[in-house]
Parts: sequence; structure tokens; C-alpha cells
Amino acid sequence: MKYSIGIDIGGTNTAFGLVDENGKVIEKESLKTRDFSVTEDYIAALVNKIEILCDKCPDTDNILGVGMGCPNGNYYNGSMEYAPNLPFKGVVKFKEILELMLLKDSYNLKVTLTNDANAAAIGEMIYGKAKNVKDFIMITLGTGVGSGVVVDGKLVYGSTGFAGEVGHTIIEPNGRLCGCGRKGCLETYTSATGIVRTVKEILNTSAYPSALRNVNQEEITSKMIYDYATKGDELCLECFDRTAKTLALGLANAAEITSPKKIYLFGGLAKSGDLILTPLKKYFEQDLFVVFKNTIDIELSGLEQDNAAILGSAALCFND
Amino acid sequence: MKYSIGIDIGGTNTAFGLVDENGKVIEKESLKTRDFSVTEDYIAALVNKIEILCDKCPDTDNILGVGMGCPNGNYYNGSMEYAPNLPFKGVVKFKEILELMLLKDSYNLKVTLTNDANAAAIGEMIYGKAKNVKDFIMITLGTGVGSGVVVDGKLVYGSTGFAGEVGHTIIEPNGRLCGCGRKGCLETYTSATGIVRTVKEILNTSAYPSALRNVNQEEITSKMIYDYATKGDELCLECFDRTAKTLALGLANAAEITSPKKIYLFGGLAKSGDLILTPLKKYFEQDLFVVFKNTIDIELSGLEQDNAAILGSAALCFND
Repeated sequence: MKYSIGIDIGGTNTAFGLVDENGKVIEKESLKTRDFSVTEDYIAALVNKIEILCDKCPDTDNILGVGMGCPNGNYYNGSMEYAPNLPFKGVVKFKEILELMLLKDSYNLKVTLTNDANAAAIGEMIYGKAKNVKDFIMITLGTGVGSGVVVDGKLVYGSTGFAGEVGHTIIEPNGRLCGCGRKGCLETYTSATGIVRTVKEILNTSAYPSALRNVNQEEITSKMIYDYATKGDELCLECFDRTAKTLALGLANAAEITSPKKIYLFGGLAKSGDLILTPLKKYFEQDLFVVFKNTIDIELSGLEQDNAAILGSAALCFND
Repeated sequence: MKYSIGIDIGGTNTAFGLVDENGKVIEKESLKTRDFSVTEDYIAALVNKIEILCDKCPDTDNILGVGMGCPNGNYYNGSMEYAPNLPFKGVVKFKEILELMLLKDSYNLKVTLTNDANAAAIGEMIYGKAKNVKDFIMITLGTGVGSGVVVDGKLVYGSTGFAGEVGHTIIEPNGRLCGCGRKGCLETYTSATGIVRTVKEILNTSAYPSALRNVNQEEITSKMIYDYATKGDELCLECFDRTAKTLALGLANAAEITSPKKIYLFGGLAKSGDLILTPLKKYFEQDLFVVFKNTIDIELSGLEQDNAAILGSAALCFND
């Protein structure tokens, strides 16, 4: 049996897992990312956790390496570059530094790094529904909107290593201001905060009845919109419909570039299941260029939500 | 020396060329596509022209095959499927039928077919500027807007064989009606007819002075717009600026999926050189997501316009 160690670096938590080749998570560890403000201290803590997991492996000689998923992770040079929402600024050369520090402690492990959505795509390929799917797009719908694009069985990195930014394609020229500084990015409509922006717009410009009219607008969350929508709240359902319509356009435009067989949805919005899938599929087919109609299935990811980030990162070692 | 035969099927002409491995066109032939209404007659004429070129080859044993570029050409099955603007309806199995007919005449040649923009991309890779460029997008700006997307040195066909339809990504939701039946496709703004639509819009809604105000609007052509723009006609320059702005958005959105190193422009609009390139590059950089800024060059294709279609098709045989 082969093993790998997966690390997912998030703004709040850093999750670690020892994973076997079948996708079983054997041991888990975690850190609070925000407990660290100095990069060197954080890296020392990473090394410590990696070594703890190595020592728990039933067959240390068969650990293939360490896979890392992080925001703005660059596969080509193994660095995290100018990641937003993290305490570590500038370029952090995770691969280079971790490999050296592990070797100093006699752990000879190769470190592979990519961005979190790319890791999720590889996780889907190795452990999820995409085992035999050569062309697909993975969409992660969370605080942001990420994506990993797979063409002919290989993740697309492109010339920069940053390919696959479907969330930052511009869907509405002169639309909503995005955290990236531009306007109208898909992310501003279909991320968790995007949906909250949409529901506020509907609240303030329509007469739809809604339980949300009794809630302080500053306290509205995407979870609340989902909960009320499942209870039939008209305004929240309208919000899901508009979100699906915008997401459909972004996905159709991306699909026309690479002609995937499948699009997998993962993360917060995906948890709402048919509430988003039903309108999404309808609008998506309408938006597709004729040669692609009825050729692309949109499905929920096959990765279990709780371990998905660890599995995706661990899968990097099995993919290389 | 190796050779191949390239065929470009256009709505008006079908062009044939015997091409050597260095991209030298040794012999040319052509047919008027519109002279044929029966598919069988057209195919017989194709076979005849192919055999004429074979017989003119200095080394018949070293002809690698026949490459064909055509609208809606499907690389996977070698068929042209429901091509618009051609007399041959439905699915035409060019590869299957041509290989059989050539074999019957003792010409054992493999036929490779793809759509015309994909063929142009492969032409750029084999004979043009993209010889050492692993990630690029080829954009053909003509009556329509086509594209070929190359990732890691390989043309992207996707699950359908039709990947790379940048011209049919929707850039303006609820925008101009497209020949494909949808609204707001990039093609409706940046094709030859798209530019004419734009100039008419500006004529009818602005006070820009223009030589075009003395021309019957039904007679305006994209060539006219270019000619007046080079003479400093304000309205035509505004038209180029708007066209560049829309094209920039379409190219930026596509580039964010595959992160190309280069984007090559080919065809009518590309002939206008800096008139389109200067504003295009400016808007393109503005539209790019931060990690891609200053990583992508937009250039004119390195293929000579006169032989480009033949070279692209011929290149298919050298690429396989």
C-alpha cells in the first residue's frame, strides 16, 4: 500500500491527513492558521505535523510525498504567491523550504503544491467521480469561486501555473466590484458572499415576501438563504434562481473553451443540491453553443465534504 | 523530405496544396465549393485534386497524408457535422469516404480532419510563430470568429472534438443576436459583420464626423472601416476602439481558463495591425485577473495570409 500526506492551507485552519492510495484518511491533524503571524514559525509547525503523521504511517518507506493545496499555489515553483486572506505575505517557497527541513530530520519527501481548487480537481480524478473522465471542470463554491480544469486526463496549469480561474472570468461587464479590483467577476455573484449580495439586492428592489425581511440585513448568511429556500421562501428561491442563471453563463463560457464531459460542483453552494442544480442545468443548456448542447453533465462532487481538501492535496502525490 | 496535402474547405473556395515539411507550398489547386450541390460529386472532385497533387510530388512515398480544415470539422470521427454556409447538409464522413476512394485508386493515405481554426492553430505550431510555445490561443477573425486552444503543446479537442469556441462565448448577456441563435456572442461584435454592425450603431447614435456618413449604410464593409480608420476618420477609430474593448474581454476570459503565453490573431481584422492591436492590448491588460497581468503577449499570426489555410490543414499530418 502507498501513502501520502495531504495538507490544505485555509485562511482559518490548516488540515493535515495521512491518506492511503484508496483515499482512506488514516490520521488527521490540524492547526489554526491564524495563530501564526511569522512565516518561519508556521513552516516549523507544518514540519512538526508532517513528521507526526509520517511516524504514524504503517509503512513509512511507502510514503510517496507531501501534497499541498493553498490559495494562489504555483505548481511550477512550489510557492504560494501573494495569497489573499492569509497572514503570510509575498512569495512563500513552501516546496523548497519544507523539503530541506524534512531532509534535515531524515524525512526524504517530495513536496507538490498547487492551488486548492486544482487539488480538488485532482482529488476528484483520483478518489472521486472523475476516475475515468478525461475532460472535466471542477468548480469550488465557497468564500470564493475556484476551479480546476482537466483536459485529456491532465490538469491544465498553463504558462503561469495559475490556469483555471473560472471564478474570475468577467460575466457582467461593469458589474459588481470584486475583491480582485475588477468588476463583474463570476465570484461576485456565486460565492457565499455573492449570494448574500444578491439576496440583499432582491430585498431592496422587490416586493417578494420573505422571512428575511425580519432579519437585520447585516446578519444574513448564505446558510440562512439556503434554509429559508428549502422551506419555500419565495425571495430566497428567486435568489437561487438568479445565482443559477449567472453561474450557468460562467460555466457555459468556460465549457466552450475546453468541451468537458462533466462539471463537478463542490463546496457551500453545492451542498444545496437540487435547489441550485435544477435551475443551473436549465440555464446552462440554454446558454450553450449548439455543438455542446446535451454533451455536458453537471453533477455534485463525489468527494466527501469533510475530507475533500485533504484528499485533494494528498492526491497530488498519486497523480504525478 | 516529407510532404503532406492540405485542404481548406471554405464556403466559397476549396483550396488544395502540396506542402513540404518546411512549410513550402509546392503546388496549389482549387475548386469553387459552390459549384457542387451533391456531396458525392464534391467528394469525387476532392479525390481528383488530391491525386493530381500526389502525382506532382517529387517523392510520392513520403506523403504523410491528407489534412483537412473545414467548418464544424470533428477531429474524432473525421466528419464535417452540420456546417453552416455550405451546400453539403448533415454529417459528411470525409475521412472514411476519402480514404476508401483514394485506396481504390491505389493511394494509401490517411486523412485527418479538424475545424478550420484548429487547423490554423496547428499551422502556427508547425510553421508559424508558435514552434516553441506550449500554451497559446489562435484566434481567427473573419466572417466568423474561430479559435484553436493549445495546452501543453497539444490542441484541445475536449470530449466532443469541438473545444475552443471562443467566438461563441457570451460576452454581453442579452446582447446582439448571433447566427447561432443565442445573444451576445463575441463573434457578433468582432467578426467582419460584427464590426459593420458596430459602425452602424455609432453612425446612428453619435455625432462623430465620418466619411461613412456619405455612404449608403447597406454598402458599408469592414474593409471600408479599416481604410477610413487609417486615414484618421474619428468614427471609424471609435469603432476600432469598441471592437478592441469587446475582443479584449473575450480573450481575457478565455485566457483565464488556460493561461496561454501567447494569443495569435489571424484573418481580416488582424490585417489592420496596430489599429486593432494597440487598443486591444490596453483593454486586455485591464481586463486580466491579477495573476495573469503582463504574462500574455497578443501578436499577429506568423502564417502568411495567402497560404495559411492550406498550411494549417497540411500541418495536421505533421502534428499527429
